Amino acid sequence: MKVSVIGATGYAGAELLRLLNNHPQAEVVYMTSESHAGEPISQIYPHLRGIYEQKLISMKEIDTIAAASEVVFIGLPHGHAMAVGKALEGKNVKIIDLGADYRFSDTAVYEQWYKVEHTHKDAKRVYGLAELNREAIKGASIIGNAGCYTTASILALAPLAKNKLIDMDTIVIDAKSGVSGAGRSAKLGNHFPEMYDNFKAYNVGGHRHTPEIEQALSKLAGSPVVLSFTPHLVPMSRGILSTCYAKLKPNVTAAMVDEAYEAMYGREVFIRLLGRGAYPATKEVRGSNFCDLGWHIDPRVGRVIVLSAIDNLVKGAAGQAVQNFNICSGFDEKMGLLNVPVYP
Amino acid sequence: MKVSVIGATGYAGAELLRLLNNHPQAEVVYMTSESHAGEPISQIYPHLRGIYEQKLISMKEIDTIAAASEVVFIGLPHGHAMAVGKALEGKNVKIIDLGADYRFSDTAVYEQWYKVEHTHKDAKRVYGLAELNREAIKGASIIGNAGCYTTASILALAPLAKNKLIDMDTIVIDAKSGVSGAGRSAKLGNHFPEMYDNFKAYNVGGHRHTPEIEQALSKLAGSPVVLSFTPHLVPMSRGILSTCYAKLKPNVTAAMVDEAYEAMYGREVFIRLLGRGAYPATKEVRGSNFCDLGWHIDPRVGRVIVLSAIDNLVKGAAGQAVQNFNICSGFDEKMGLLNVPVYP
Amino acid sequence: MKVSVIGATGYAGAELLRLLNNHPQAEVVYMTSESHAGEPISQIYPHLRGIYEQKLISMKEIDTIAAASEVVFIGLPHGHAMAVGKALEGKNVKIIDLGADYRFSDTAVYEQWYKVEHTHKDAKRVYGLAELNREAIKGASIIGNAGCYTTASILALAPLAKNKLIDMDTIVIDAKSGVSGAGRSAKLGNHFPEMYDNFKAYNVGGHRHTPEIEQALSKLAGSPVVLSFTPHLVPMSRGILSTCYAKLKPNVTAAMVDEAYEAMYGREVFIRLLGRGAYPATKEVRGSNFCDLGWHIDPRVGRVIVLSAIDNLVKGAAGQAVQNFNICSGFDEKMGLLNVPVYP
Amino acid sequence: MKVSVIGATGYAGAELLRLLNNHPQAEVVYMTSESHAGEPISQIYPHLRGIYEQKLISMKEIDTIAAASEVVFIGLPHGHAMAVGKALEGKNVKIIDLGADYRFSDTAVYEQWYKVEHTHKDAKRVYGLAELNREAIKGASIIGNAGCYTTASILALAPLAKNKLIDMDTIVIDAKSGVSGAGRSAKLGNHFPEMYDNFKAYNVGGHRHTPEIEQALSKLAGSPVVLSFTPHLVPMSRGILSTCYAKLKPNVTAAMVDEAYEAMYGREVFIRLLGRGAYPATKEVRGSNFCDLGWHIDPRVGRVIVLSAIDNLVKGAAGQAVQNFNICSGFDEKMGLLNVPVYP
Repeated sequence: MKVSVIGATGYAGAELLRLLNNHPQAEVVYMTSESHAGEPISQIYPHLRGIYEQKLISMKEIDTIAAASEVVFIGLPHGHAMAVGKALEGKNVKIIDLGADYRFSDTAVYEQWYKVEHTHKDAKRVYGLAELNREAIKGASIIGNAGCYTTASILALAPLAKNKLIDMDTIVIDAKSGVSGAGRSAKLGNHFPEMYDNFKAYNVGGHRHTPEIEQALSKLAGSPVVLSFTPHLVPMSRGILSTCYAKLKPNVTAAMVDEAYEAMYGREVFIRLLGRGAYPATKEVRGSNFCDLGWHIDPRVGRVIVLSAIDNLVKGAAGQAVQNFNICSGFDEKMGLLNVPVYP
Repeated sequence: MKVSVIGATGYAGAELLRLLNNHPQAEVVYMTSESHAGEPISQIYPHLRGIYEQKLISMKEIDTIAAASEVVFIGLPHGHAMAVGKALEGKNVKIIDLGADYRFSDTAVYEQWYKVEHTHKDAKRVYGLAELNREAIKGASIIGNAGCYTTASILALAPLAKNKLIDMDTIVIDAKSGVSGAGRSAKLGNHFPEMYDNFKAYNVGGHRHTPEIEQALSKLAGSPVVLSFTPHLVPMSRGILSTCYAKLKPNVTAAMVDEAYEAMYGREVFIRLLGRGAYPATKEVRGSNFCDLGWHIDPRVGRVIVLSAIDNLVKGAAGQAVQNFNICSGFDEKMGLLNVPVYP
Repeated sequence: MKVSVIGATGYAGAELLRLLNNHPQAEVVYMTSESHAGEPISQIYPHLRGIYEQKLISMKEIDTIAAASEVVFIGLPHGHAMAVGKALEGKNVKIIDLGADYRFSDTAVYEQWYKVEHTHKDAKRVYGLAELNREAIKGASIIGNAGCYTTASILALAPLAKNKLIDMDTIVIDAKSGVSGAGRSAKLGNHFPEMYDNFKAYNVGGHRHTPEIEQALSKLAGSPVVLSFTPHLVPMSRGILSTCYAKLKPNVTAAMVDEAYEAMYGREVFIRLLGRGAYPATKEVRGSNFCDLGWHIDPRVGRVIVLSAIDNLVKGAAGQAVQNFNICSGFDEKMGLLNVPVYP
Repeated sequence: MKVSVIGATGYAGAELLRLLNNHPQAEVVYMTSESHAGEPISQIYPHLRGIYEQKLISMKEIDTIAAASEVVFIGLPHGHAMAVGKALEGKNVKIIDLGADYRFSDTAVYEQWYKVEHTHKDAKRVYGLAELNREAIKGASIIGNAGCYTTASILALAPLAKNKLIDMDTIVIDAKSGVSGAGRSAKLGNHFPEMYDNFKAYNVGGHRHTPEIEQALSKLAGSPVVLSFTPHLVPMSRGILSTCYAKLKPNVTAAMVDEAYEAMYGREVFIRLLGRGAYPATKEVRGSNFCDLGWHIDPRVGRVIVLSAIDNLVKGAAGQAVQNFNICSGFDEKMGLLNVPVYP
C-alpha cells in the first residue's frame, strides 16, 4: 500500500519512517518538509542513511502526493493538518493525523485550548485510540491519532471510568515525559546542558492534552469530567510515565479493580497488564508499541494509583498511527509493530 | 568546634564532609565506617583526595569519639542511630541524626512503618526542619534531621496547612528523586544500564517518608492528616522535585495563597519563593541548601499545585544537618552554606 | 530453524532474544541460566513480558538442548564456552559463541591474556567477523563471534592494513563504550550515581580485546602488529565509538584512502561509509547492526584518523551473531537484521 | 577588590559569578551582556536568584566599568576581547580574558587558526596557566587564560615534554568534553534528544585548541611540536578527560616518568597526582579547580598514556581565571577555590 508522510522531519515523522520500513505492506512514496524540500531525508536524519535516500518535497505538491498515495500520515504542528484535510476532500486518500486537529468531537474545545480557528469542522473524523475506538477506526477516512500523554493517561484510567469505580472529580494525573516530546526545534530550555541532570514541571493547569483526556474519560463515564493534569520533563529522550490518582467509590474492592482491567484489556496485544502492585518502567517499552500498566490500591487514603508507561514516539505517536493504519486498511493490527523493546 | 561523622561512607556522609570542609567553625575529628575501618576516606571517595586523608575508624570506639567531639553527626541506616544515642547519654555531646530514628514524636508510628523496635523512646529529641522548628532546635541535644522527600514536601505544603487553605484529605504528593537517594549500595535496579534513560515509580502507598510528612502537616493543621505520597526515580544523580496537589477550600483566593507563602517564608534565607506561576528545577538548586518553591492555582479544578525543588543530599540531608548544627551551636544559620548552585 | 541460547540472562543474551524474535527463520527452543533456572525469562527481563514466557533451564541439560537445536548461541563469560563446545562434539549442532573462547587461532595468546587454560585447542573454529571472513563462516560449525570493541576497531582499520597504507607500529585506538559493555552484574563502579555524569578510562594497556584486534590486523597486514588500545566508559547504556590513529606511509594520498574503504566495503550492507570528513555518532546506529565509518586525513601530522560507531550489543555482539547465523545457515545475510536505528 | 565581568551570560561567565561569590576579597560591581542589557542576571540564570540580583549593562559602558573596577574578566567569544583590551589601554585595570585573543605569543598563529585579524598585537600579555607560568602572571596586566582542552592536555604532557622523555612527533591527544564546552547557544547538534545517549567526535584535525597546546609544549620541549588533537562530546554537562599518548624515548624508565610528575607538580595545590596506574574520573573533580592526573606505561608498545581530568568550567575556565586573579592580585593562590568536588 502506497503511503506518504506529510511533515516527515519532526521526531514523530522520523519514527514513522522507522516503523513503516519494517511494515510488509507499506511503501513510502513521498515525504514532505517545507524547510528542507529538495534535500534527502538522510541528510536531515543521518541514521536513515542507506535506508531511505528519497528527497523531501514540499507539501504544496499535495495533488501529486494524493494521486500516488492511498494513505497520508500527517506529522505537522497543530493547525496545519486541517488545510491538508480540506485539500484531500473528495479524493480517495485516507488521512491519519498525528497532531491535534482531528482529535476533538467538539471543535469549540479545540479552539479554546489551541487558540486556532478550526477550519474543517464538518470533517468526518474518528478519534484514533484503537483500544477504545477500534470499530469506528475500521471505516474511518480521517483519523485523529491520540496524543502521547493522552494515550498513557486514558488507557490508565479507562477501565475505572467505564466501570464507575472512582469519583471522577478526584482525578489527578501527574505525567512525566522524555524530551523528544517537545520536538526537534532547538530551544534554550531543551539545550543539552540545561536539561541534562535536571527535572522540572511545565504548563501546570494549561497543557493541551488535558481536554483530550477529559473528552475520552467523560465519554466512558457518561458525564463531564474535569481533572488535574501536570506534565514534567525527564532528562531522557523517550518515554512517558503517567501516575494517575483517584478516590475509589465506597465499597469498591481490589478484585473489582483487577477485574475491570482484565475485562477491558485482557485480550489487547499492545497493552501489557503487569497487574496490581506492579511498576511499569519506561525503558521496558522503549522502541515498542506497548503500553504497560500497573495499579495500586492504598486503603489508608482510599485511592487507586495507576501507573502507565509508553514510548511517546511509538504508542504515543508513530506506532499508534501504524496501528490505526493497520485497522483502517484491513491488515492484522499487529503488522509491523511486534518489535521487542530495546533494552537496556 | 570538634565534630565527628558516624557512618561517613554513605552519600549523605560524604556530602557532610564536603560541606563541613567549607565551614569556618567545624573541624572533623573522627569519621567511622564498619566495613572500611582502617582505610583512608579518600580511598572510598577518591574525590576527597588531598582534602581529607583521615582514616576511618569503627564506631565501636564511641567513647574516644565522644571524648573528642562536641557534636556527632550520624549517617547510619535507620535503626542504628538509637544505639549511638543511648551510648552517648549523659555525655556532653550533641547528636544530629540524618536518619529516621529521632524524627517521630510518636515512636509507635516509627515502629509501624520502619518495622523496628524503638529502643530510645525517652530520648529528648527535636524534629530537625529549621524553617518549622527553629526555636526547639536551638536548645536541642538530639536532633532528628528531616528526610529528603519530607523536606521538599513539608516545606511545599506548610503554609497551606498552617493557614487552613486546603482540604487536608485531598493531598496528593507526587515526588521524583535522583538515584543518590537510594544510597551507595550497588543493586541491579540502580545498575547504570538499567536506570539510565529510564523512569519509574516505587513503593506506592508504602514509602516511609509518608508518616513523617503527615506528622508535620497534622501538627500545622491541628488535626490528623493522611495523604497519598508516591516516590519516583529520575535518571539523574541528585535532586528532588515534589509536585503537591490539594483542593482549595471555598473562597480561598490566589492572593491568600501568595500571602501565606510570603508570610511564612519571606525572610527565610534558604527558601526561595519563585512565586505563583513559577517552575522550580532541580538543577537550579544543585549542590546548594536552597528549597525553591513555585505554586499554581487551577480554577478549573479548584486545586492548588505546589512545586518544590531541593538537592536531596543538601537541603534533604547534609545541608540541613549543617543548618541544624549552626542553630544548635549558636552560629549564624547560614554559616558554610551559602554556596551558589552548580549550574549547568 | 531451532536454536537455543546458552547464557541468556546477560545483556548480549537478552539482545539475541530481541533479534531472534524478529527473525523469520529462527525459533528459540531453549534458553539457559544457572542462577535463574526454573524462572521465566520475562521475570529476569520484564521488557520481554508477553513476548517470551519460556522458563530458563540449566545448561546441565545440554543433551536435551543439543537434541532439539540446530544452532546453539553461547553468551557465557569467557572460559565457559569451551566446556559446551566439548560437550557438543560429534553432535550435529553448530555453535556461535559470543565470548572469547573461540576467537583466537593461537590459543597461547588466549591463555596469556585471559589467564585461563584453553581446553579445546583442536576445535575447528572460525573467527566470526563476517566482513572479513565470510567464506570461512559459511562452512563453519564453531564460530567465535568477534568482540564489541574489536569489531569497531578492526572494521575501522582493515582497509588501511590490507592495503598497506599506514605504518603498523603507529596505531593508537582510543575506544569509548556505553556501560552495558560491562555486563549486568551490579558493581559499585557502575552504580548509577557513580557512573552518571562521569567519564573515565579503564584497563589501559591491558584490555583483552587488544590481542584480538592485533590478530586480525596482523593477518591483513601480513606481519605482526602491536598497538595501543584504550577503552573508556561513556555515561550511556549502548554504543561504541572507536577513534583510530595511524601515520600514513609516504606518498599515500587521500584518494588512495578513500578507494581502500570503497573497495573493501562498498558492497557491504551493514557498513555505512559516511566518507572522508564525516562523523559517525553512536546514536545513529543504536539498536541496529550497522557499523558507520568516517575518516579524516590530517596532513599537518601525516596521520589518518578513522571513526567507527556501532551498537555494542548488536554489531558488537548479538547482531553479529545473527549475521553469522544467517551466513552459516545459508540464509540471506540480512535476514532479521534490517531494523532502522532507534533515533533519537 | 572590585571586579567586573564582561560577557557574563555564557557558561564561563556564570561559573565565574559562582566562584567570585565565594571569594572573600572580590566584589562584582558590573556584569555585561549585549543581548540582555537591562535585565537582572537572575532572570537569565535563575539558579542565581537571591544571590545576584544586579542588572546586566552593555559593555558600551566600558568607561564606567573601568572607573569602578580593578580587574575585568572577559567571557566573550574570540575576537571580541581585543576591542575591550584596546579600550582599557592606559587605564589602571587588569584584564583576565577567558577567550583566545591573548593566548598566543605569535599572533600569526592566532590569525591562521581563528580566521580573525588580531588588532592588539602589541598587548603585553601573559599566558594564564598558573602551574607553568606563575612568575609571569604575578606581574601581568593582561592575562590570556588557558583554554579548557588545553589546560587538561598541557598539564598532562608538560612533565614529559620538559624532561624530554618522549618523542614529540608521536603525540596523540584524544580528548572528551561535556557539552557545556560548546556554549549556551541552542543548536540542533546539542538539542537534548540529539545529544543524550550519544557520543561523537568533531573537528578532527582542526580544533583551535591544537595550536595552543603546541605552543606550550614546544616551549617546554625547546623545539616546534605538531600533534594530533581530537575532541569528542560526551553526553554530560561538565568535565573533560584527556587521554594523551606518546612514544617513550629509549631507556626511559617508569621511575623517570614518575619522578618528572612528582618534581613538577608535587607541591601544586590544584594538581592531584593519582600516580602511575591510576584512573582520573571527571566526576571526581566536578565543580572544583582540581586537575587529576594518572599515567600508564605500556611496555609492549613503548608508549606512555597520560589521563587528565578537569571540570571544563572551573580549572578549564572560571576557576583558572580566579587562580590567575589571585596570583596577579597578590592573594593566596587558593583563595575562594578550595571547594570540595560535588560528588556524586
